Amino acid sequence: MALAHIPRPKSKPDLRTTRKLISLCHDLLSDGNGVRAAEAIRLFETLDQPGRLAFFDVLIRDFSPSPEDVARIAEDYRLDPSPGNLKRLQQIVEPPRQELFRRLNMAAGGTRKLIEMRAFVLAETESHPELEPIADDLGHLLGSWFNSGFLTLERIDWNSPAVVLEKLIEYEAVHQIQGWHDLRRRLEADRRCYGFFHSALPNEPLNFIEVALTRGMSDKIQPLIDPDAPVSDPIAADSAIFYSITNCQPGLRGVPLGGSLIKQVVEDLRKSLSRLRTFATLSPIPGFRDWLAQEHPNLLDEPQPESKQRLLSLCAWYLLHVKRDSEPLDAVARFHLRNGARVERINWMADPSPVGIRQSEGLMANYVYELNDLQRNHELYAHGGDIPASGRMERLARQVGKNKNPNWLTRHFG
Amino acid sequence: MALAHIPRPKSKPDLRTTRKLISLCHDLLSDGNGVRAAEAIRLFETLDQPGRLAFFDVLIRDFSPSPEDVARIAEDYRLDPSPGNLKRLQQIVEPPRQELFRRLNMAAGGTRKLIEMRAFVLAETESHPELEPIADDLGHLLGSWFNSGFLTLERIDWNSPAVVLEKLIEYEAVHQIQGWHDLRRRLEADRRCYGFFHSALPNEPLNFIEVALTRGMSDKIQPLIDPDAPVSDPIAADSAIFYSITNCQPGLRGVPLGGSLIKQVVEDLRKSLSRLRTFATLSPIPGFRDWLAQEHPNLLDEPQPESKQRLLSLCAWYLLHVKRDSEPLDAVARFHLRNGARVERINWMADPSPVGIRQSEGLMANYVYELNDLQRNHELYAHGGDIPASGRMERLARQVGKNKNPNWLTRHFG
Amino acid sequence: MALAHIPRPKSKPDLRTTRKLISLCHDLLSDGNGVRAAEAIRLFETLDQPGRLAFFDVLIRDFSPSPEDVARIAEDYRLDPSPGNLKRLQQIVEPPRQELFRRLNMAAGGTRKLIEMRAFVLAETESHPELEPIADDLGHLLGSWFNSGFLTLERIDWNSPAVVLEKLIEYEAVHQIQGWHDLRRRLEADRRCYGFFHSALPNEPLNFIEVALTRGMSDKIQPLIDPDAPVSDPIAADSAIFYSITNCQPGLRGVPLGGSLIKQVVEDLRKSLSRLRTFATLSPIPGFRDWLAQEHPNLLDEPQPESKQRLLSLCAWYLLHVKRDSEPLDAVARFHLRNGARVERINWMADPSPVGIRQSEGLMANYVYELNDLQRNHELYAHGGDIPASGRMERLARQVGKNKNPNWLTRHFG
Amino acid sequence: MALAHIPRPKSKPDLRTTRKLISLCHDLLSDGNGVRAAEAIRLFETLDQPGRLAFFDVLIRDFSPSPEDVARIAEDYRLDPSPGNLKRLQQIVEPPRQELFRRLNMAAGGTRKLIEMRAFVLAETESHPELEPIADDLGHLLGSWFNSGFLTLERIDWNSPAVVLEKLIEYEAVHQIQGWHDLRRRLEADRRCYGFFHSALPNEPLNFIEVALTRGMSDKIQPLIDPDAPVSDPIAADSAIFYSITNCQPGLRGVPLGGSLIKQVVEDLRKSLSRLRTFATLSPIPGFRDWLAQEHPNLLDEPQPESKQRLLSLCAWYLLHVKRDSEPLDAVARFHLRNGARVERINWMADPSPVGIRQSEGLMANYVYELNDLQRNHELYAHGGDIPASGRMERLARQVGKNKNPNWLTRHFG
Repeated sequence: MALAHIPRPKSKPDLRTTRKLISLCHDLLSDGNGVRAAEAIRLFETLDQPGRLAFFDVLIRDFSPSPEDVARIAEDYRLDPSPGNLKRLQQIVEPPRQELFRRLNMAAGGTRKLIEMRAFVLAETESHPELEPIADDLGHLLGSWFNSGFLTLERIDWNSPAVVLEKLIEYEAVHQIQGWHDLRRRLEADRRCYGFFHSALPNEPLNFIEVALTRGMSDKIQPLIDPDAPVSDPIAADSAIFYSITNCQPGLRGVPLGGSLIKQVVEDLRKSLSRLRTFATLSPIPGFRDWLAQEHPNLLDEPQPESKQRLLSLCAWYLLHVKRDSEPLDAVARFHLRNGARVERINWMADPSPVGIRQSEGLMANYVYELNDLQRNHELYAHGGDIPASGRMERLARQVGKNKNPNWLTRHFG
Repeated sequence: MALAHIPRPKSKPDLRTTRKLISLCHDLLSDGNGVRAAEAIRLFETLDQPGRLAFFDVLIRDFSPSPEDVARIAEDYRLDPSPGNLKRLQQIVEPPRQELFRRLNMAAGGTRKLIEMRAFVLAETESHPELEPIADDLGHLLGSWFNSGFLTLERIDWNSPAVVLEKLIEYEAVHQIQGWHDLRRRLEADRRCYGFFHSALPNEPLNFIEVALTRGMSDKIQPLIDPDAPVSDPIAADSAIFYSITNCQPGLRGVPLGGSLIKQVVEDLRKSLSRLRTFATLSPIPGFRDWLAQEHPNLLDEPQPESKQRLLSLCAWYLLHVKRDSEPLDAVARFHLRNGARVERINWMADPSPVGIRQSEGLMANYVYELNDLQRNHELYAHGGDIPASGRMERLARQVGKNKNPNWLTRHFG
Repeated sequence: MALAHIPRPKSKPDLRTTRKLISLCHDLLSDGNGVRAAEAIRLFETLDQPGRLAFFDVLIRDFSPSPEDVARIAEDYRLDPSPGNLKRLQQIVEPPRQELFRRLNMAAGGTRKLIEMRAFVLAETESHPELEPIADDLGHLLGSWFNSGFLTLERIDWNSPAVVLEKLIEYEAVHQIQGWHDLRRRLEADRRCYGFFHSALPNEPLNFIEVALTRGMSDKIQPLIDPDAPVSDPIAADSAIFYSITNCQPGLRGVPLGGSLIKQVVEDLRKSLSRLRTFATLSPIPGFRDWLAQEHPNLLDEPQPESKQRLLSLCAWYLLHVKRDSEPLDAVARFHLRNGARVERINWMADPSPVGIRQSEGLMANYVYELNDLQRNHELYAHGGDIPASGRMERLARQVGKNKNPNWLTRHFG
Repeated sequence: MALAHIPRPKSKPDLRTTRKLISLCHDLLSDGNGVRAAEAIRLFETLDQPGRLAFFDVLIRDFSPSPEDVARIAEDYRLDPSPGNLKRLQQIVEPPRQELFRRLNMAAGGTRKLIEMRAFVLAETESHPELEPIADDLGHLLGSWFNSGFLTLERIDWNSPAVVLEKLIEYEAVHQIQGWHDLRRRLEADRRCYGFFHSALPNEPLNFIEVALTRGMSDKIQPLIDPDAPVSDPIAADSAIFYSITNCQPGLRGVPLGGSLIKQVVEDLRKSLSRLRTFATLSPIPGFRDWLAQEHPNLLDEPQPESKQRLLSLCAWYLLHVKRDSEPLDAVARFHLRNGARVERINWMADPSPVGIRQSEGLMANYVYELNDLQRNHELYAHGGDIPASGRMERLARQVGKNKNPNWLTRHFG
């Protein structure tokens, strides 16, 4: 994603190239053609950051629908809501830059360039919110192109090309991979790794998931990511633990890929390893400590041994009952619950690393993926906000919840 | 494309299944998911023709934008043409069935099914013009998905899978392939065949082009398609003659694939056979006789030897000067001129088959593809209506054109 | 195998080319090198049949061990049977042409050429028995190179390249394939076809086997090879019937490939279709009628209805008890029994075609491949000559056998 | 090659398993069969080093030809040197273990196991010279199986599977690869790496060669192997420098693979990079210093600046005139001269590493591969011992050689 990190010189934007590029874009629109698309992309790549901002500025100004035309055709449609008028309205509200992007895609490697372009735009939107329509337009296109019907699930292992493997090292952020020795351990016989790929981006994983095959549902992260852990026999495993899921393409932010990945991986694992009974994650609880710090700040000062049970209960409460709108406050919980998973267990000192302590006092959660329940769970969650959980989790949470008095927590734990 | 030819029973449409399918479509929209998409497609496939028509009827009625909502948001936009309001307007004018189609695509093999669905709809639009929006919506989606950046050019030869080859036999309509013996001749050392493929439709050519490698620019079709013609040495050839181009997917009608195919084939041939100098078609002139019958009916009764020169001149005139709007009346001419080709030559008795006589009195045309000129030709044609032609063609046409007197033709040839 | 059928002109052999080739072979031996190997093969291919015979004549005369050297070193070895002397003896008895053939193999496509060369030699040995050492030397090499560890089993179906499929049509001799329509039926969902391939001969099946998936063990060949038979559901099948096995390479005659093919196919089918219970052949009994004509000529004149039971008994007797050396007289029986199969059943009017009547009065046999028994059956057969058979077969044969009187047959059936 | 390094316990060999294995080998010989082959290999792998030695001891004693039989049939042949008697003699002198090895190859992965077995035997022959016949037998088989007609040249780059790439790191011994960072540099755009592969050993390079694309013929090794050297444009290169060639399979020692590799790589490079003019090595001169130490020990004590010219002359003399039998004493020179290369240049301080100094006082040689001359050079060298060299090399050597006086060197340089 080098595009997102180009240096930002103080100098004036390279407006001459930008103007040339804009002129080329007009030609390209009037006359779609792979040769011109390649030339336009080449020019774009030579632009520095101010030049690019100037380019997108023109795209927003000059490659947007004309408000007057839109208003006129909208009025036509209001007077006569016929299919013909609707079609004209649909056409007029689509910004011409959308078609421009489709034509840029005709160049060899064009799709990759559009993804990089969106990554650049997304990185700029904080300081340049006016670029959002560009990010939206590209997001709409890419969402359509990266429809899960066009993705293929591939197993990634030590037989995969190095050019794929180095991307795992580069992108993995949850539990960083410390070079090739560490990577190799994560691809041994008792581990699995899968990614989604798109035919337009060969050897470029869109996302990937790391799985450990274990006996019993893991309650500690360290043994799963220890590069020197002994390799166990995958045939003897009864559990598949999803311990990391990573998106590789910042330019595809917002394009839904992950849930479908886990479901397909569960199905593939079931077929190839018939003894597997449990499919579960070992997940961080990224928002727990922040919530705790805000709601029960005094708890964080206590010596841990005394507070263990309180923290477990509060964490169960946090996952099952602390919501924003109708969904859990915790982002990871939201992700797995939307997929139809169940909150199964929270584990004490599961991640004693500085990051683990900072995020969640070392706690991690297991979310269980039961293929037969996914659809039902998902629907109950999506429509009613129901959070499926194990009895154990509910009992833990109840230790907090049964006391309705708002001061209870403070009194009880404080 | 079996879908387009299902029998039409007199019985009442299978409304129970249709209703079930519609309900499934609502679920699918609220909650995208490959399993449901597969089930919806399965249900659709069990519907008979009236059931399908009923289904599409509901899609038009209930999965269209609400005119009231559209009018309201269009008014918001008129008052404040902000990006936010434009985005809302864009969202509201997109029919929900568009998103439904995207979700159907998530099923395994979904893309193929959507193409078949559009083929069915297109076949019905003549008697059911109200289905046109469905064809348009699907066409818009497929046009985006089958962007030429997602297509791969593949050579088709005797090493190709039989499942691909039988499709050549099935689809070729210009110069029909009479079984495997004929097919094999068309894939011998002095022939080339290429097709475009999409990763979602493995072993399914979207279109294909047939090429003969010859010495000199061919002026007769028969030697090119004679299944028993001797095989010549491709290394010795100086000309590549494109003698047939076929679209295989009725459901992709209107999605532009062909021009890009020829250009990429010319480039591939240039790389692999460095002695090739001429890249030209040997093309039918499908509208010539109809035009002649209307404009110069008496000419058709003449004994041919006398009329040869007159017919050649008139045909040159027909190709270079007889237009509809600003383009040639002849559909094949329009196709090649849009691609940037040049009208090079017309050939007497090039196709003496009944079809050839009926279409064009046996005449065929060579259009030359000069890689360096394609872009310029295309632009002159697209913007000014200029038709690039050889001197010979222009001289031939001039024999007709120089006489401005509208009765000239009648007098001269009549 | 065009090599084997070159025309035989009356003219004198092309000795000049032969001499050039021989000289090249000497160079090649002194200095192995792919370029020279390719040139030698090219020269050989230009030779007519007498030229080739002359070439092989030189190979036998001049590229054989020297009897004197052999005798001398054999004497050394007799006096001192040390490893060093044995090694020298091994080296001296290997004809230099063996190393020559290894070096010819270094040319691109050399392996294929050596197979064709052996096919030529085998075709000539009847009239030129002095060529046998050449056939033996090549056979020894090819036997080592086509060790089953170097072969890969591949499924052949409608996705296979046409260049492979046309070879099925070309080579199948047991139940000839009548063109592509017939071929396609043999590759439908309820049929399977597998072949062995070697990496040096891409797209060239060494042999192949045709399988029908049926309900019940087939007792008639016609439904299995009827190109218009309805396609049944392979999932519902309980039996896999091997109805044809074909060797494609005359030049590999004597190199054992077939038995290993059937065993691997049985294993692959068991994995992919778990409902299959019976793995059996439906095989010709090629020697039955000849034997009958010799032993019981009068039986062949009887009207069939009366003789059905007698023929069945005699056929069972023929398969189980009529031997040459210690093995059954019937070649097909020998093949399957060596593989460890069991004689299960003979079927009346199973092949009423002229060939079927001529070979075996229309009878065909089922040999059952029971994976668990193959090894034991094979050993009992190989070491003791035991012929495993079903009880039914043994009872049938006993109707003949229990009468020890040599005239019984004549009296009983005559 | 873990097999070669198994621990050697003091305990008695595991004779029970050895006996079981020997019995299995007898069965395997009487009845070839993949299942038994796999079992035999499995047993062999469980044997410790003494058990293996005991096993090979039996192979030598009991799976060798019987001297009596050999003597008898040799006598038959002496009396009647007919093809039949020769064939019997050939059969009797082949040790039965040779056929045993062929049958072991029938197991899945058998070829790899036989290569490992030979690696083990070769590693033992120094202390157990009686194992040599085993190494010879396996070498003979593998030499036939790894005929260059069965090898495929493959480019190795960053798209290759990690399982291949890690073998480069593991095996490269000339200029060791320091981990993945170093490896990646050696596979960048201005580097090439090729290996030979055999279909029976997927993802297992048999050998590989490393090439640097440069401007001018390299005279220093360091810039070629510096992991942080800047990447240059391969299109601009005029020279391909072969700076390392490595055999990966100790079990294939003596099977000729390398010369053919270089020639094929030169051809492939010429096709893909048309500007390349020079194909040359940058090679160590491993025997120079040892020779110098023996012949001119005093020279090694001199301060270098003074001795530079003397050393260069002596090194040229060493390469062109110091021979053992009819070939150069220097092993690397022998290898390249057999391939038909020319001694082009020696380079001062080309490898100033400790190894470079120790081997050759820092000197390295360029051998030039001129495709058109390879065959002729090779023949002149092979038959007459001619060493092709550049004029510069000959002049350098002449400074030593022209003085015939045996004391010249001492006087002149001493």
